Formats: sequence, structure tokens, C-alpha cells
Amino acid sequence: MTKQYSIGLDLGGTNLRAAAVSKDGALLESVSGSTPYSAGREAIVGDMVASIEALRERFGKETLRGIGVAVPGFILLEKGIITNSNNLASLENFAIRDELSQRLGTPVILENDANAAALGEKWIGAGRDVNDLVLLTLGTGIGGGIIANGDVLRGHLGMAGELGHITVVPNGNPCGCGNRGCVEKHASATAITATAKLLGLGDALTAKDVYNLAIAGNEKAREIFISMGQALGIVLAMLVNTFNFPLYLISGGPIAAWDLFAPAMLEETSRRSFTFRTTHPRVEKAALGNEAGLFGAAYLPWIIKAQ
Amino acid sequence: MTKQYSIGLDLGGTNLRAAAVSKDGALLESVSGSTPYSAGREAIVGDMVASIEALRERFGKETLRGIGVAVPGFILLEKGIITNSNNLASLENFAIRDELSQRLGTPVILENDANAAALGEKWIGAGRDVNDLVLLTLGTGIGGGIIANGDVLRGHLGMAGELGHITVVPNGNPCGCGNRGCVEKHASATAITATAKLLGLGDALTAKDVYNLAIAGNEKAREIFISMGQALGIVLAMLVNTFNFPLYLISGGPIAAWDLFAPAMLEETSRRSFTFRTTHPRVEKAALGNEAGLFGAAYLPWIIKAQ
Repeated sequence: MTKQYSIGLDLGGTNLRAAAVSKDGALLESVSGSTPYSAGREAIVGDMVASIEALRERFGKETLRGIGVAVPGFILLEKGIITNSNNLASLENFAIRDELSQRLGTPVILENDANAAALGEKWIGAGRDVNDLVLLTLGTGIGGGIIANGDVLRGHLGMAGELGHITVVPNGNPCGCGNRGCVEKHASATAITATAKLLGLGDALTAKDVYNLAIAGNEKAREIFISMGQALGIVLAMLVNTFNFPLYLISGGPIAAWDLFAPAMLEETSRRSFTFRTTHPRVEKAALGNEAGLFGAAYLPWIIKAQ
Repeated sequence: MTKQYSIGLDLGGTNLRAAAVSKDGALLESVSGSTPYSAGREAIVGDMVASIEALRERFGKETLRGIGVAVPGFILLEKGIITNSNNLASLENFAIRDELSQRLGTPVILENDANAAALGEKWIGAGRDVNDLVLLTLGTGIGGGIIANGDVLRGHLGMAGELGHITVVPNGNPCGCGNRGCVEKHASATAITATAKLLGLGDALTAKDVYNLAIAGNEKAREIFISMGQALGIVLAMLVNTFNFPLYLISGGPIAAWDLFAPAMLEETSRRSFTFRTTHPRVEKAALGNEAGLFGAAYLPWIIKAQ
């Protein structure tokens, strides 16, 4: 038999991508979806199926190990449905795994996008040399993925790793999840721009704009990144105390500002975690950027069987 | 071969106990140590060895499956030493596992006491019907134990599960670990009595006294348990979001006040965790009381090999 490959699909923030990947993590070919998510459920699902089919025709059914699909939101893995998603309301409470499996004529493996990203980093990214890591992805919100013994820690319904909704300020900023002071309301890209607005730096700044202000010496802008680092430090201390893993990765656009927030983050983590000070785990930037979820999805068929 | 048994030893808060236990968790015989911890390292270690030897002579070497030992403090499992312990300063940085193994002429398995307690609850206690749970033990401090896939989640150096030092109030009460606002400074038995003092209820009250005041209708005393419940709720919400496990157990003396703190605890958990509201995990009292660590220690030889 010729060399096996897998197909991964990542339903990312703005568009979907799929890739054929070899067992050693080499990208054989990738395709991007052509339909905007606003076109609705049928269009999105059609685009997912077409992207996967294009790759499967190109590389053949015989050597296809399996298909992994990463989607955003709270996923009920047992049922294969997205229960809650800020970005993809049209897919909520839809049996997406069964629908894809039926249209493709073969089972697909579903996973949360942040979990898939953590798995991608473990496979061929910044976590290659460990079997246990936690990934925090900073974006519109904050996603989390936990890898224990080389596989995703899923919990009994597949909803583990919702680290963006850890409380860091008991009476902090309100969150759509019903809580106050979730870390994603204090340390995401959205939190950066909202805080800039609070500080009177501008109503329509991007996180990149705030970064440029900070680099140019604006003290208020610098404070925003220090505050963000401290919020992340509280969560990191919690994760280190809980898991005692050797590696914690941070990914997403805001890691471009690493030098602005990481010192405060590490100082806060150190102050708040005896285990951190004693065991010196690594806290590092993730390596795969936007590709992590895509590769993680493609890795799924190599480590677990389709349901 | 006649029926196998194991020996567990728990170096508890005030005295040590050891027990011979059958594979199905039946207590065959237990003994208590006779030496106060203040007598120093050599006396404590001698007492541990003598207690284990007494049981081994009684039940025989041939059918002894193995020996598990639960000790308090931060344990470096790989080296088999206690690096930090509030209660047992004389055993800090002492290679206790190797010393016990040598004196007994057979390897022993070392574990943190809270981890052992979680394992005991999983084996024959309130967690019998699940493979994944988290245990919080409320006492002088707060200990934590995480059971994933039926075994302790240890982390790469054996220090996972230090849940008492999770931050619940960023600028809260100072903790000996260097942090501020650790949950054990806001929800342990010690926190109950310290808060009673702050509120002018009395300088030398025990947690039981505060409980009796609350039951008698004292509003300040009732507030203490509500505040305690809220602090625990923040940690529970974090644990539910992180693990998505089906069961969270609370043990220790203060669970006698369950009706006073649990409503606030569950309300806080619910408000702060979308996953809690969606997946309805159980939050319950542990079942084994002070015996949990002893049984957990005895369970170790049945699931892992001595190092």
C-alpha cells in the first residue's frame, strides 16, 4: 500500500480550510472554502464537503486514514453537535458530525478548534517534545486546549478546556457566558481594544494599533498590555498548580506583543504559583499560528478512531 | 495462592495510621502510630516502618501485593521526597520513599495525601461509579486530588492537583505560598475561624463554634459560610470549565456545614460556568471522611507498580 494520508478541516474564524497531510505531518495540499459563513448552514456544510471531497479525489480513498474536523464553540462530542458558538450561530444544535459523515460516506472525527490547535502544536509545533501541555489561544475570545498523555483531555462530554471563561477578577467585566471577570474579557484581542477605548485612546483602534502606540511609548497603551499579562498570569498560575505540566503555550495575534505582556505575565505566574517557582515549567509562544487547528484536525485520525 | 492484600499508610494531620486492605476494598486490620510528629524524623519514620511491619507479619509477605504511603505536602514523586510541608517540617527534603523501601526491604509507592484521598473515594467511596473526578479537602488548608481515567493526574513531577492555591480573590488574603487570595485562605476551616475573628465573633472560636453560632441564627456567622461557599464556587467553576468531569467531591470537617455553604457555592458555580449549567455535573460530599487517604494509599499497589 502506498503511503497513507489524512484530511483535516478547520472551520476558522473567517473561512474554512482543509488539508491533506502525511503521517509525519507534511502538508501535501491545502484548499480554502469559498463561501462566507453568512451564507448559512447549507452553504457552509456544502463547502466543507466539497473541500474534503476535492482532496480525497486528488489523493485517493484507498490510502485515506481518516478525516478530522475542527469547529469553534462548545461541542457535545458524544452527539457530534455544536451547542453554543458565538461565530457560527447557524450551526448551533445541528448534528454536524453525522451530516458530514453521511454526505461523505465515511465517518469523520469532530473536535473543538482550540483542542485541535493544541493537538497540532503537540504533533508538529512548539509541543513536539512533550506529551502534556496546555494551549491558550488569544483572539476575539480566549480558547483553551489541554493535551494529557499525547491526546486531548476531553472530559465526559467533550467540553473540557474552556479556559477562556476562568474567572480572573471576581467582579470584573461581564461576559456573554453569564460570568463576570472571565480571562477572555481581560486578556483577549477584544479586551485590548475595549480597554484602549476606556482609556480614551480611540474608539476604533485595532489591537495592532494599540500595540503600535505602546511601542511608540504611550504609557496608557503599555499599561493595557501589562494588565493583560497579569490576567493571563492568574490563569497560568492556576493551570500550573492544577496540572504541573512541563509546557504552556500562548497563540493568536496578540503574541506579536509578547515583549509587552510576557514579563508581567511571568511575574504574576511566579508570584502566584509555588509550583511554578519550584518546577520551572516553560511558557512559550505557539509555533503554528493559524495552521495549528488545521494540522490538529488532520492528526485526529492517526490517534483515535472515528465514532 | 491465598487472597492478596495491600498495605496503606496515611501520615495524617495529627497521627499516622496503616491498614491491611483486600483487593475489593475491605478493611482487614488497621493500626495507629504511637509517636507524636514533634518527636522528629527518626521517630516518625520508625513508627511508619513498625506499623507496616506489624501488618505484614500478621498477614504474610507472600500475599502482600504492595505498600502505598500517603504524605502531606508538595511531593517530588520522581525523587520520592517531600519538598515542602507545613505540617511535617522534619521530613522536608528527605528521601522518604527510598528510606522506607530500604528499611522494609521492598519498594513502597509514595503519593500526596490529597491525591490518595481522591483515589480512595474513587475506589470505594463517593466516586465508585466514575473514572474522572476532582476532590477538594477542606481542613487547615485546602488540598486537591484529580482522578483522570481512574488514576491520579500527577503532572510531570507529581505536583498536580495543588488546588488550595488557586487564586479566588486577586488581592485577597496573603498566603504562605507567596500568593494572595488563595482559595484556602478564603474557604478552609482556618479561614472560617479567622473571618469570625475579623467580624468580632470571638478570638478563639473553632470552626465548629462558628457553625453553632450560624445554626443559632447569628447573621455574621451565616455570612462567613456564604462567603466560603462563594470562594469554593469560583474554584468549582474553574474546575468544571477545565475538566468537564462528571463529579466534584468536597471533604473535610467543614462539610458538616454543607447546608450553610453549599447553596451559595452551587449558585456561584452555576453563574460562573456555562459548562456547569449545560452539563449538570454532580457536586457532592465525599463519603470516606478521614479514611479516604488510608484507603487511597492501599489502592496504589493495585493500579501502579512501585518505582
